[in-house]
Amino acid sequence: MSTIMDGEALSLKIQEEMKHKVKNCMIRPSVAVIQVGSDPASDSYIKRKEKACNAVGVYFRHCKFEEDTPELTIINKIKELNNDEYVNGILVQLPLPARYNEKRILNSISNSKDVDGLTDINTGRMINGRKTLVPCTPLGVMRILKEYEIPIEGKHVVIVGRSKLVGRPLMTLMLQENATVTICHSKTSNLKEMTKQADILVCAVGNPKMITADMVKEGAVVIDVGINRVDNKLCGDVDFAAVSKKASFITPVPKGIGPMTVAMLLENIITCYENKPVTK
Amino acid sequence: MSTIMDGEALSLKIQEEMKHKVKNCMIRPSVAVIQVGSDPASDSYIKRKEKACNAVGVYFRHCKFEEDTPELTIINKIKELNNDEYVNGILVQLPLPARYNEKRILNSISNSKDVDGLTDINTGRMINGRKTLVPCTPLGVMRILKEYEIPIEGKHVVIVGRSKLVGRPLMTLMLQENATVTICHSKTSNLKEMTKQADILVCAVGNPKMITADMVKEGAVVIDVGINRVDNKLCGDVDFAAVSKKASFITPVPKGIGPMTVAMLLENIITCYENKPVTK
Repeated sequence: MSTIMDGEALSLKIQEEMKHKVKNCMIRPSVAVIQVGSDPASDSYIKRKEKACNAVGVYFRHCKFEEDTPELTIINKIKELNNDEYVNGILVQLPLPARYNEKRILNSISNSKDVDGLTDINTGRMINGRKTLVPCTPLGVMRILKEYEIPIEGKHVVIVGRSKLVGRPLMTLMLQENATVTICHSKTSNLKEMTKQADILVCAVGNPKMITADMVKEGAVVIDVGINRVDNKLCGDVDFAAVSKKASFITPVPKGIGPMTVAMLLENIITCYENKPVTK
Repeated sequence: MSTIMDGEALSLKIQEEMKHKVKNCMIRPSVAVIQVGSDPASDSYIKRKEKACNAVGVYFRHCKFEEDTPELTIINKIKELNNDEYVNGILVQLPLPARYNEKRILNSISNSKDVDGLTDINTGRMINGRKTLVPCTPLGVMRILKEYEIPIEGKHVVIVGRSKLVGRPLMTLMLQENATVTICHSKTSNLKEMTKQADILVCAVGNPKMITADMVKEGAVVIDVGINRVDNKLCGDVDFAAVSKKASFITPVPKGIGPMTVAMLLENIITCYENKPVTK
């Protein structure tokens, strides 16, 4: 049986640290979340972020726009927030409705307030190995591996999914830790052959229980980033019941990487706050 | 026996196309190459670039600085070139002497003149899937694979070497073509096990003949990016004599990826010229 990696407990521990830091701030750190339209999953993610911010004392601003808001109105709002010295972090809740130019909107966020680490320049800085804001989910994956003292150097990390939010930045972070990294995706012809080689297997696809026990090497570390709703219950991309019998360590869904993502968002907000350029 | 992929012939073909384009330009496209100090390998690379530019009619400017030039002098020169509307492309010959802050110098190049595709923002744009200037060597690898009609989608591409000039950008380009990609490097514990899986094996390390026949799958496509000087003769990272008996396609050294890199530089210069923002 495997050790279940408790993302929720670790997230609460990190929140405690953040709370302690925030307590000493005269002006509270703050984040603005931009939402366009209303999608039930986005609503629930935003609520979780708000709850975590409230718990640690980060001031939370929710900027909600109607589905048909002109793009320029949203970009102007972001520019206003960029120039507001009392706003430390800005994030746009994704996905945006299809008609918006997501890249243009994301790139209008100031690089120094980009708590999701998604502007082109922050992406480039990360790839080029510079200190910068990194997307929260891959950061959460690295952090939980560290907490459980999982060695990464020289290990074969197989990542299933190549999204800009998870797969691609995670690959960079894993390379920085000297892992051998393979990225698989929907066009991979022999997925099982790949996943079976993984010392550390990360799945971030959004396909319920797609990783079955026969796809996992005995003793592998399995990180499940997927959050899927099946029969009104949350489940991950990994068939937890079966895979947990083979893995040495495994993250559950819920209470695995989900809370870690929120904890890393708090860390990124505090980082922005601490690195705030001095105004005037 | 394998098909030898003739990078030199393809490079000359591309140069012909470029020559044709340049012939119709009233003002010639131009590139400025910054060199600091003198390193024999850099001298020879710069000479090859100059020769290719001359061959197609691109105006070549060589800005050479002494080894002990202050960093600010170099950056000011780059700024001057950024603002010079008759300069379309700027590149800094790497490596710089160790005392310089390479990232700071590279990032002072205007993103629209960055023919080596190395500024943070161009790196980020590439990773995020936007049209941008891409480093020449990985571009050359993709182009020669295309010329020989090697299918990439769904194939397992194994890249040995994770440099920002070759390995990392190549991985992004391969993912865009729907390959399954593995990156290996000096810390990879089981290199042979990895390389033997490759449908397409790319080696970009700079270690003479490190890829031996037993590390290559029968019928694999082998791309050798290494350029090493052994006993005053050039050789690649691949043991060509032995591996060429197993591979289906293979690039030689010299006359493989080297000339392709120069051809892609010419393409990037022309791209910068064609996309030049209208001044005044």
